Amino acid sequence: MQPVKHATDYLTFETPHRRDYVNITPQVEDFVGRSGIEHGLVLVNPMHITAAVYVNDAESGLIQDFDDWLEKLAPHEPTGQYRHNNGEDNADAHLKRQLMAHQVVLPITDGKLDLGPWEQVFYAEFDGRRPKRVVLKAIGE
Amino acid sequence: MQPVKHATDYLTFETPHRRDYVNITPQVEDFVGRSGIEHGLVLVNPMHITAAVYVNDAESGLIQDFDDWLEKLAPHEPTGQYRHNNGEDNADAHLKRQLMAHQVVLPITDGKLDLGPWEQVFYAEFDGRRPKRVVLKAIGE
Amino acid sequence: MQPVKHATDYLTFETPHRRDYVNITPQVEDFVGRSGIEHGLVLVNPMHITAAVYVNDAESGLIQDFDDWLEKLAPHEPTGQYRHNNGEDNADAHLKRQLMAHQVVLPITDGKLDLGPWEQVFYAEFDGRRPKRVVLKAIGE
Repeated sequence: MQPVKHATDYLTFETPHRRDYVNITPQVEDFVGRSGIEHGLVLVNPMHITAAVYVNDAESGLIQDFDDWLEKLAPHEPTGQYRHNNGEDNADAHLKRQLMAHQVVLPITDGKLDLGPWEQVFYAEFDGRRPKRVVLKAIGE
Repeated sequence: MQPVKHATDYLTFETPHRRDYVNITPQVEDFVGRSGIEHGLVLVNPMHITAAVYVNDAESGLIQDFDDWLEKLAPHEPTGQYRHNNGEDNADAHLKRQLMAHQVVLPITDGKLDLGPWEQVFYAEFDGRRPKRVVLKAIGE
Repeated sequence: MQPVKHATDYLTFETPHRRDYVNITPQVEDFVGRSGIEHGLVLVNPMHITAAVYVNDAESGLIQDFDDWLEKLAPHEPTGQYRHNNGEDNADAHLKRQLMAHQVVLPITDGKLDLGPWEQVFYAEFDGRRPKRVVLKAIGE
């Protein structure tokens, strides 16, 4: 009979621009290693609603493509087009994070993050220049 | 050694309009409290494919922005633009729920839903006026 | 006290077209049955970043609607519009998979996949004609 194991950690980001894309795969891998969990699931979830965690390619052209595409489908300007922007200017950030599906759950196999060859975990900031947290929560055996 | 704990519950919604947005954070928090799980994960998943569960701000202007934006990217009218609308008129609802990423997994820490300051869990109905179910499933210790 | 159980499997797909939609519900149900897990969660995650796993209707008109809609919001042509397409032509596939939210977590109840009446699990390929893997990971008791 196997004991349940769990682990929790928090990452904090304060990015220099309104929008930034940070590869956090090393931090997630490190967390999984420290958890001692051999088989299980790890949730990587932004605790702020103007940011996303997603899995995709660590390729600079693609990251720029994502940024252009998000601006096209949920533009920042004109800020007055959004009802939320009444003293705020970040309504687009709330929308962009939904387009990126905002959170991921990843498998842990044999004590490691079980990723495909090009899967990388990113923190996508859409309203930066202030501290934001991501919660890591793993459960397994 | 810790026992595995699990809990399951179902919520039913019958909203008055075709599209509605219901803050279900209290129901999810209550479920987590009743589960007796101290550390784990909770899945909140609509069991119908014309609805979504998402996490974002409980701000009425933003909810209206979401609704306008979903109508722009996946419009209801003209209903004849969709092949699915052959005796049905809800193809747009199937698309909208994908845009909102349709389900969430949330962390349980110290017996409580581990949410950031503005994270609120919403049930988004895109084809309402009939009963729909959401499944809550938690696992942990 | 319940033991933790876990199970892992991999599915491989090599679809005939650039874009294809494959109903994988039977494979996921079979995996859950073989896992021996009575209550828990199962993650279904593509290990390639130009594919998605999603839950929606197994209705051929709707699948064509999804395909048309994804082409409208993240078009393949002209391939030169994307910075990523520098020796590649699949930037749109990376975007389309985000629109479809790319992975799902499903509940296991009483030893079975706990799905609503119309929920079906699909593998969506956006850059096919080569082998791609999906990981299945279940945890529970």
